[in-house]
Amino acid sequence: MKNTETSPTALNLPVVDPLPEDTQKYFDLCAEKLGLIPNVLRAHAFDIAKLDAFAGLYNELMLAPSGLSKLEREMIAVVVSAENRCFYCLVAHGQAVRALSGDPILGEMLVMNYRMAQLAPNQRAMLDFSLKMTKSSATIEEADRQTLRDVGYVDRDIWDIANVAAFFNMTNRVASATQMQPNSEYHGQNR
Amino acid sequence: MKNTETSPTALNLPVVDPLPEDTQKYFDLCAEKLGLIPNVLRAHAFDIAKLDAFAGLYNELMLAPSGLSKLEREMIAVVVSAENRCFYCLVAHGQAVRALSGDPILGEMLVMNYRMAQLAPNQRAMLDFSLKMTKSSATIEEADRQTLRDVGYVDRDIWDIANVAAFFNMTNRVASATQMQPNSEYHGQNR
Amino acid sequence: MKNTETSPTALNLPVVDPLPEDTQKYFDLCAEKLGLIPNVLRAHAFDIAKLDAFAGLYNELMLAPSGLSKLEREMIAVVVSAENRCFYCLVAHGQAVRALSGDPILGEMLVMNYRMAQLAPNQRAMLDFSLKMTKSSATIEEADRQTLRDVGYVDRDIWDIANVAAFFNMTNRVASATQMQPNSEYHGQNR
Amino acid sequence: MKNTETSPTALNLPVVDPLPEDTQKYFDLCAEKLGLIPNVLRAHAFDIAKLDAFAGLYNELMLAPSGLSKLEREMIAVVVSAENRCFYCLVAHGQAVRALSGDPILGEMLVMNYRMAQLAPNQRAMLDFSLKMTKSSATIEEADRQTLRDVGYVDRDIWDIANVAAFFNMTNRVASATQMQPNSEYHGQNR
Amino acid sequence: MKNTETSPTALNLPVVDPLPEDTQKYFDLCAEKLGLIPNVLRAHAFDIAKLDAFAGLYNELMLAPSGLSKLEREMIAVVVSAENRCFYCLVAHGQAVRALSGDPILGEMLVMNYRMAQLAPNQRAMLDFSLKMTKSSATIEEADRQTLRDVGYVDRDIWDIANVAAFFNMTNRVASATQMQPNSEYHGQNR
Amino acid sequence: MKNTETSPTALNLPVVDPLPEDTQKYFDLCAEKLGLIPNVLRAHAFDIAKLDAFAGLYNELMLAPSGLSKLEREMIAVVVSAENRCFYCLVAHGQAVRALSGDPILGEMLVMNYRMAQLAPNQRAMLDFSLKMTKSSATIEEADRQTLRDVGYVDRDIWDIANVAAFFNMTNRVASATQMQPNSEYHGQNR
Repeated sequence: MKNTETSPTALNLPVVDPLPEDTQKYFDLCAEKLGLIPNVLRAHAFDIAKLDAFAGLYNELMLAPSGLSKLEREMIAVVVSAENRCFYCLVAHGQAVRALSGDPILGEMLVMNYRMAQLAPNQRAMLDFSLKMTKSSATIEEADRQTLRDVGYVDRDIWDIANVAAFFNMTNRVASATQMQPNSEYHGQNR
Repeated sequence: MKNTETSPTALNLPVVDPLPEDTQKYFDLCAEKLGLIPNVLRAHAFDIAKLDAFAGLYNELMLAPSGLSKLEREMIAVVVSAENRCFYCLVAHGQAVRALSGDPILGEMLVMNYRMAQLAPNQRAMLDFSLKMTKSSATIEEADRQTLRDVGYVDRDIWDIANVAAFFNMTNRVASATQMQPNSEYHGQNR
Repeated sequence: MKNTETSPTALNLPVVDPLPEDTQKYFDLCAEKLGLIPNVLRAHAFDIAKLDAFAGLYNELMLAPSGLSKLEREMIAVVVSAENRCFYCLVAHGQAVRALSGDPILGEMLVMNYRMAQLAPNQRAMLDFSLKMTKSSATIEEADRQTLRDVGYVDRDIWDIANVAAFFNMTNRVASATQMQPNSEYHGQNR
Repeated sequence: MKNTETSPTALNLPVVDPLPEDTQKYFDLCAEKLGLIPNVLRAHAFDIAKLDAFAGLYNELMLAPSGLSKLEREMIAVVVSAENRCFYCLVAHGQAVRALSGDPILGEMLVMNYRMAQLAPNQRAMLDFSLKMTKSSATIEEADRQTLRDVGYVDRDIWDIANVAAFFNMTNRVASATQMQPNSEYHGQNR
Repeated sequence: MKNTETSPTALNLPVVDPLPEDTQKYFDLCAEKLGLIPNVLRAHAFDIAKLDAFAGLYNELMLAPSGLSKLEREMIAVVVSAENRCFYCLVAHGQAVRALSGDPILGEMLVMNYRMAQLAPNQRAMLDFSLKMTKSSATIEEADRQTLRDVGYVDRDIWDIANVAAFFNMTNRVASATQMQPNSEYHGQNR
Repeated sequence: MKNTETSPTALNLPVVDPLPEDTQKYFDLCAEKLGLIPNVLRAHAFDIAKLDAFAGLYNELMLAPSGLSKLEREMIAVVVSAENRCFYCLVAHGQAVRALSGDPILGEMLVMNYRMAQLAPNQRAMLDFSLKMTKSSATIEEADRQTLRDVGYVDRDIWDIANVAAFFNMTNRVASATQMQPNSEYHGQNR
């Protein structure tokens, strides 16, 4: 897979060529495991320090051990991205929800209106908190955190919910501001 | 300076004790250079991998070489945080604007209503773009990026503007969701 | 295909049983041509006069001759439904866009953020007008209609754009207010 | 009464001339019973199939037997139209509320701010539901429907509330998008 | 006319009894000239110093010499009150527009949606500025003031527009917060 | 202190020169007690009748005896001005809160996000009511007033809360519409 094809954003920021060895290995690993190199990584690869910093935080939040399952973290990603109407993240993380849940309709519900999904009460509370963080974070108060504790989350989980929801409020905005295009492979997968 | 005093957030997530040597050195350096250890670092220090990932991205965006000056990046931080009404970030980065600009009234204007400030046209465009990203990122289109180019920004600058504005849309939400308290020293500085 | 299975809404309004002959023929025709009886028809079929009135207006707006193609009318349907976050209509009419355009990514773009699609200027103006009608119809003035004329629409087309956009502002609300479930067949089609 | 005078909208769509016999009879009946031919009918009369489809749904929703009185359906019409600031519908249906209720101040309250009216609890719940459908239909959930059941509505009534509220979300938008003028006779009636 | 009948607000704040001589004269003058004592005056008359301060500012803004006619000031009052959905002010000042303009339909248009009225360009600009002040005053900048100058207003007129629009943003909120009832006589007048 | 220096607003409305004796005395008194003549007074001083009417209402609301302390009235002023993002009022009344409370961090919290402050329940309810009046006054109903009574306010206090909150909704808009500059002395005081 070529790294230097057309930029995945509207900015003219070509991928470093050749890539440093570690980066090339990371991209090769993506291609092997996912069948593609996510465009968000290629978008950052005009500056390897920025790519590493972004990937470092992403991996820590989405892949490291947590009281939240990987699916739950992807569910937050989709609900936040739906509120922000981020095409890139809805396509990429909508596919992740379909893949991890084995439930393509759940993926669509989270993209379109998560209130239509029949969710466990703790998952619903997790998504409601993520949405409130997205729409009006300044109005969050102790009662909101207590609602999460009341459905079983511990403070470490609340940290993780808050940080995943916040992270997609960052990446949604980078993707929209740069018109980042998702890899077209996602669209047809896990339907 | 003790690392393990009362948590700077409403979550019960105590700082790792003792800190790893590298982290302790980093905190000591902060204390020496800033006269304080920013509470946002102490808030993350319950998990050193998370602290490192967060600090890695922060440093890359706010301190690495860029077409934007450090003051300009802090100006974006304050305008985004004002829209999101994030107490932590307004206090900490409002102080940074006062310090870096030597203009305490500029700091207040950015906190309260940046439209009151007499800014260079490129800085005004930079802040308008950051605000639009904060309020309605999905509506950003090529015309918005062109507006930035028309006042002299190159695509690499646009990437940096977008990523700094997006980053504070993340940290504002983590701070508000966890009721993070800023260090009280900031309030009186550079007035 | 049985007409009287579980209601497609959260209201307990069973389908008339047996259906009048004309209605049964209409449903049989749907099943034959579409492979399903759209749940919106079954939802109305507790009262045949209401079903007929609804279907009468729907068919007149979406299927009768018009300066707008059927695809264009479906594009309006999806963009309006996206703004209103109507799960039923996004699923059903998103599928229609995929089918009529042969472009599954276009369908996803209209569901998620139509500004990401590369559209002909007249189609973009048509969708912008439909969105403005959806969000703040009271602010529409002559200048908005003139924008449509400037890209080639005649007044009869403007009537059709306005009525299709308005119609989905009606059906979106009925579907959301009654938690109407789309037929599950739509999800996987034309991906 | 002449059918072909100045168009009641900003679109140049002349009334069919002569009208088909059935349509002329319908208009004559309106003139006889109401003292006027509602401009919304004349606006549709450039295409008799569209007029018939529109009038068919209108009559089914507003005049057919229902658990809601005609006054209650007009109250919904006014509250929805007030939220959408639709001049045509506020004038026409505001007059209907004054006429059917014999209470001109009630009509004004519903136009201006329905919360000022002293209403029976079920009517207030009906209007609150209609407003929520108008402003944020995607957030309606089972609890909202249950609130209606708790004040005595059955599921068939909920269907009717939802469909009347939705219908005016359609007509408000057509009227505003085409700058439809209400018949001037309404203004002074039932004051 | 009795001063001490039922309070015109939801607060239990009885009118001073007896009224001081000057106040009684003022109320008698209102009764003679207007045929009623405006309820907003009776609402303040539990404390004569507050009544005098309020009436002093009201009279200065609405009745003193100005580049704006009394009708124009009432038009601003209605458009601001429409945005704020203030029942009291819409009823009282809607009647004033009808009376001063001799055009009852103009009064209704300003109450319902001022964009429907055919206004002179300077009056339209005046109302647009008043609406922007009402909805998002912090976004007003020099360009907005220049728009007013471009249609012929001098700086003294701009002051008057701004102060009248601002005044009704005050009184709307007092009336709504206290559920102030307008005198019922207004409803039928000048129809 | 000279009265006729550069105008404190963007409007060319010079201070009357010389000032009438009473006005000069009032300004001298301000200079003596506050160390400055508030720019809002100089802005009105192009027309002494307007200055007197404004100052009359201001003094009655902010300085006359009330169940609310002067600090509490200033707290309302700041929270309303924060919602409206009024630079003038945030600077001037933010300083007043710092001075009257002796708590500079409280002043900053009210400017930035009053929900971060640890307030007595009655003060919190007072500020919540003031914010609701600012954002959506038309939705205030008896339950909102009862919430204030439940934390100990009597109806006279509710009148005062409503009128102070409403007053700053007026002055915020005048200040923003005219780009009124606060006296620079406020910024550094009571930090």
